[in-house]
Amino acid sequence: MPDPIITLTTDFGEDSPYVAAMKGVILCMNPSARIVDLSHQIPPQDVRHAAFFLAECIPYFGPEAIHVVVVDPGVGSNRSLLYVELGVHRLLVPDNGCWTLLTGKPRRVIRLAEPGYWRADVSNTFHGRDILAPVAACVSVGTDPAGFGPVADHWKRLEMPAVSHLADGYCGEVIFVDHFGNLITNILGALVKQQATQLVVADQPFPEFVWVRTYADAKPGQLLALVSGSGFVEVAIAQGNAAERLGARTGAKVILRWEH
Amino acid sequence: MPDPIITLTTDFGEDSPYVAAMKGVILCMNPSARIVDLSHQIPPQDVRHAAFFLAECIPYFGPEAIHVVVVDPGVGSNRSLLYVELGVHRLLVPDNGCWTLLTGKPRRVIRLAEPGYWRADVSNTFHGRDILAPVAACVSVGTDPAGFGPVADHWKRLEMPAVSHLADGYCGEVIFVDHFGNLITNILGALVKQQATQLVVADQPFPEFVWVRTYADAKPGQLLALVSGSGFVEVAIAQGNAAERLGARTGAKVILRWEH
Amino acid sequence: MPDPIITLTTDFGEDSPYVAAMKGVILCMNPSARIVDLSHQIPPQDVRHAAFFLAECIPYFGPEAIHVVVVDPGVGSNRSLLYVELGVHRLLVPDNGCWTLLTGKPRRVIRLAEPGYWRADVSNTFHGRDILAPVAACVSVGTDPAGFGPVADHWKRLEMPAVSHLADGYCGEVIFVDHFGNLITNILGALVKQQATQLVVADQPFPEFVWVRTYADAKPGQLLALVSGSGFVEVAIAQGNAAERLGARTGAKVILRWEH
Repeated sequence: MPDPIITLTTDFGEDSPYVAAMKGVILCMNPSARIVDLSHQIPPQDVRHAAFFLAECIPYFGPEAIHVVVVDPGVGSNRSLLYVELGVHRLLVPDNGCWTLLTGKPRRVIRLAEPGYWRADVSNTFHGRDILAPVAACVSVGTDPAGFGPVADHWKRLEMPAVSHLADGYCGEVIFVDHFGNLITNILGALVKQQATQLVVADQPFPEFVWVRTYADAKPGQLLALVSGSGFVEVAIAQGNAAERLGARTGAKVILRWEH
Repeated sequence: MPDPIITLTTDFGEDSPYVAAMKGVILCMNPSARIVDLSHQIPPQDVRHAAFFLAECIPYFGPEAIHVVVVDPGVGSNRSLLYVELGVHRLLVPDNGCWTLLTGKPRRVIRLAEPGYWRADVSNTFHGRDILAPVAACVSVGTDPAGFGPVADHWKRLEMPAVSHLADGYCGEVIFVDHFGNLITNILGALVKQQATQLVVADQPFPEFVWVRTYADAKPGQLLALVSGSGFVEVAIAQGNAAERLGARTGAKVILRWEH
Repeated sequence: MPDPIITLTTDFGEDSPYVAAMKGVILCMNPSARIVDLSHQIPPQDVRHAAFFLAECIPYFGPEAIHVVVVDPGVGSNRSLLYVELGVHRLLVPDNGCWTLLTGKPRRVIRLAEPGYWRADVSNTFHGRDILAPVAACVSVGTDPAGFGPVADHWKRLEMPAVSHLADGYCGEVIFVDHFGNLITNILGALVKQQATQLVVADQPFPEFVWVRTYADAKPGQLLALVSGSGFVEVAIAQGNAAERLGARTGAKVILRWEH
């Protein structure tokens, strides 16, 4: 049987020793664990960024992985930490909704309450190291999660913002800006039955945009829209940075229209 | 036998979920694979940066590793994806020349054409996840690459820019700017039989430069040239950033002369 | 027995091929090694940053790991490279003090001197690849370190800056700025018997600061001080960046006072 996989997603960056400390705790408790970095570049305290990030990558993993998420502005407050089973996936997360854009109904949610599974000396500011890392190591060696604490029947949820259906199109918003400056919207590509002919971002029309299949169908520097690999409509600039050029950020309103 | 190694080199950054999705696809198909990150900080769409990067690190790996490269501005267009065997190295790459600064004659190049090895639902914009990751997982479990598609006998090549031999020196150019701001040129250190006495970068002479063995032979802040660990002549500032101070980038002309 | 773990801490960044080359050397010599990235974002040549970083994460690791550190402004000069055993920890480091903020007395320190364990062709500028990586691979396969070179009985040491005891408080300094812009001082939390009522950073008083248990006890944007997860007093802004807002860097003087 392959060694267990523990993935890490944090907003810790890599200039700080926090990720490394978590890796030490995990490997000290289970020297066979294989640690896989998903990201340590979630923008600080940005739970929505983390939520979209997780929704776009966790589904590709199989049942072998245990996913630890530390984007946790509420650390040390009365927010809980959760062990979650959702489809084949197992996650250890703060109860701030970061996991709730994943589709599917959770099979089991446990509120971490039993300090016997934690580091002996729990700080007020670093529960990733002191609680989530040791609990992940326990899961990875086969400890029954039932002992971690009581079953939870409610938790904080994030919702995708709604898309409005217009007479001749859709009005949505930017839900994620990726590393390339591509603007990923909440408008499902499956809704777009014909090529859009009008694009408005943050109240500004962009009549020169092109609707394409892929980036290389536009000229370098050209504004384009397409159905991205995530299934959502994306606004991009071929070999350029749309977020910078359009000055658009998460939350910017996006309207797509087409002529009949 | 050790578990198979799959390395990843991309321009995806780490704030986006793209690297993580590829890791999920690989580990879901082969839970024994060991994923090794080479870089996710290749500048966006910069195939030349990727090519020098690969030329400087792949040769140090042994035959155990499978190298996946996703710097792919042509994704979804009619550019191909390739499986390449070169010396002991195996690579999965877009056919944009990113692997062609590696020395040696390829033993086998296959054009990926058989969708049976791909994800069922291939997007137009993310072939790293939908084609290269699953094919890498197949290679890692021992699938014969012969089935991936037809043998290719031509492919896009990048060339190192030429170095001009002057009466009293060489004229080359900056081919890579590293994380420290060191300027790596295409002038081979082996060509430099005596210490250079004149340095010109981007048409500007720097009479105060020193020719040294290593950075610590210059004073902090001093401009220097040396033979770098890559074997090429490098222009640097001791404990400083030459690219910033000289305003030099990839492509800047570099002249080295010496007095007889 | 689990496969050996080799951790890497460097200032190489990830846009350069240097980390990848070291991984290649290690995995080529020991294909069973599991490489764990601690950080490649140590600020260039910043030995003090590396020292605090290591002091805050190495103690969480167990005896399985071999820690390779390459923050090495003196590469190629007459500075030595060391193999160090400290408690259960084993490190390969430049002799620049980067490991000397770790607590405990070293059990064994060896000066690397025997080229038989190195790459055949050692460059003047990249000893991480040419010396430390191959020696780490040797350690990971069980080679006796006694052969690496002579036992060392002195080495460069860094010291924590001293904290001054005032009549009504302490005067220390910022020793580390983390990824969030939190200012970690050298004032031990254990010294703070009551809530501080005055905070001065870089000679500027901040009467509006609050002393809290954890970030979430302050309002977003509020300046706070607390005992951090490292055990030191930390100055932070709830969900904000204190280093930017206060213009404070490593070395800035910090005074905490309380009323009797």
